Amino acid sequence: MITSTANGQIKELVKLQKSAKERKKTGCFIAEGIKLVKEAFLEDMLEKVYLLDKLLEDSEIKELCDQTEYELVAESVFLDIADTVTPQGILGIVRQPKYSAEELINSEKGHFLLLEDLRDPGNLGTIMRTAEGAGMNAVLLSKGSVDLFNPKVVRATMGSVFRVPFCYAEDLGQVIDALKARGIPVYGTMMKGSKRYNECDYRSGAGIVIGNEANGISEDIAAHLSGTVMIPMAGRLESLNAAVAAAVLMYEMIR
Amino acid sequence: MITSTANGQIKELVKLQKSAKERKKTGCFIAEGIKLVKEAFLEDMLEKVYLLDKLLEDSEIKELCDQTEYELVAESVFLDIADTVTPQGILGIVRQPKYSAEELINSEKGHFLLLEDLRDPGNLGTIMRTAEGAGMNAVLLSKGSVDLFNPKVVRATMGSVFRVPFCYAEDLGQVIDALKARGIPVYGTMMKGSKRYNECDYRSGAGIVIGNEANGISEDIAAHLSGTVMIPMAGRLESLNAAVAAAVLMYEMIR
Repeated sequence: MITSTANGQIKELVKLQKSAKERKKTGCFIAEGIKLVKEAFLEDMLEKVYLLDKLLEDSEIKELCDQTEYELVAESVFLDIADTVTPQGILGIVRQPKYSAEELINSEKGHFLLLEDLRDPGNLGTIMRTAEGAGMNAVLLSKGSVDLFNPKVVRATMGSVFRVPFCYAEDLGQVIDALKARGIPVYGTMMKGSKRYNECDYRSGAGIVIGNEANGISEDIAAHLSGTVMIPMAGRLESLNAAVAAAVLMYEMIR
Repeated sequence: MITSTANGQIKELVKLQKSAKERKKTGCFIAEGIKLVKEAFLEDMLEKVYLLDKLLEDSEIKELCDQTEYELVAESVFLDIADTVTPQGILGIVRQPKYSAEELINSEKGHFLLLEDLRDPGNLGTIMRTAEGAGMNAVLLSKGSVDLFNPKVVRATMGSVFRVPFCYAEDLGQVIDALKARGIPVYGTMMKGSKRYNECDYRSGAGIVIGNEANGISEDIAAHLSGTVMIPMAGRLESLNAAVAAAVLMYEMIR
């Protein structure tokens, strides 16, 4: 059992939780909690498990540990590696899934969500979760977007992080051009979009771009779009929450 | 200028931030940040402002303070009364808007969102914001739902808390019955709902019930419903986020 926070593995786990750079370097991330660890195991992406010994009393967790490398951790040490305030006492190192933009764009024709510089972890997690529900082909992110493997994002995905294909694009404008070249129109969501969101025909495939929470879609990206759409708003609201706008549009695309 | 956290007003502000009971007793709540304080002022609901003296350099805030009772607060004291980690340095005591369930139910025929025991502050705030955008007549909450005047909820509403009519119902089942008696069908959102959400006709008014994040709609409430609807989900997801489900349904109702 690991009983000291000075332990090398513990230091490595803390770095994985806190640093996007470390996650990028190692190609790994941390999934915390019983549900997420089980899902990572089912997807065959779980590398190693760290847990409190009392959790081995759960027969499913015991079985998972029989098939995966694991380490027991003292309760005081676990608080150091957990990102949650009241941890369940289990987390795993998980291999990051890898997809290339090219492979995703050239997959079967369908529906794509594009995110330009989305910054809020909760929003990205919720969007990935909704993207799974709405059956998006893939989520394509500008490289200025928040890290998908940030612990808050991972938790908010409720496991969709393991299942929804995604890619951080060096140049989101090029991705839009590539989709358009395949005959897939790409619309940007703007407050002053030229059409209502439900006036487009998304049936033979489409992409929707959601912009940054504070600034919306940049002029650079706007120049690549097939058109713009707006979600009508009553009242005196300036905008909808980005995850809400994404949800309304994704479900409209597959309606 | 208030320079001590032992000041009686400061103690009262801290109570208002932390205690739903205190908010209920006084009929007031706290709006924090420049945007929310300005909106409360515009809606004529602002009772008193507390701010750092440097904020008086902003001409709009200066004008607002000329027309509202205010107190200057030292920076060290402000950190104590702020709910945010990096406060902007202004907050206001705001009168809670009051509506009766009866008045809301008997308002013009339209669209209603009903929430049963919704617990997450971020979800409720986002739902109120979306309810304004989608132009709901009112949001009707079971009394087991999180307090709308919780500071996290207030911030997430982005000002909709001042504008969307709402009511906490003693008995949400009775509210459903009253809507139905007016010819307004009320549907519950369930994973195994009998119709797809876009197969109902909401045009002559409707209500939608969203259940508790963990447990969904209770059997008690289900017994009152006109019917149930489901949002189709691809993948291996158990459910959508409650604010996302509410958004998809509210925008479908007004589509």
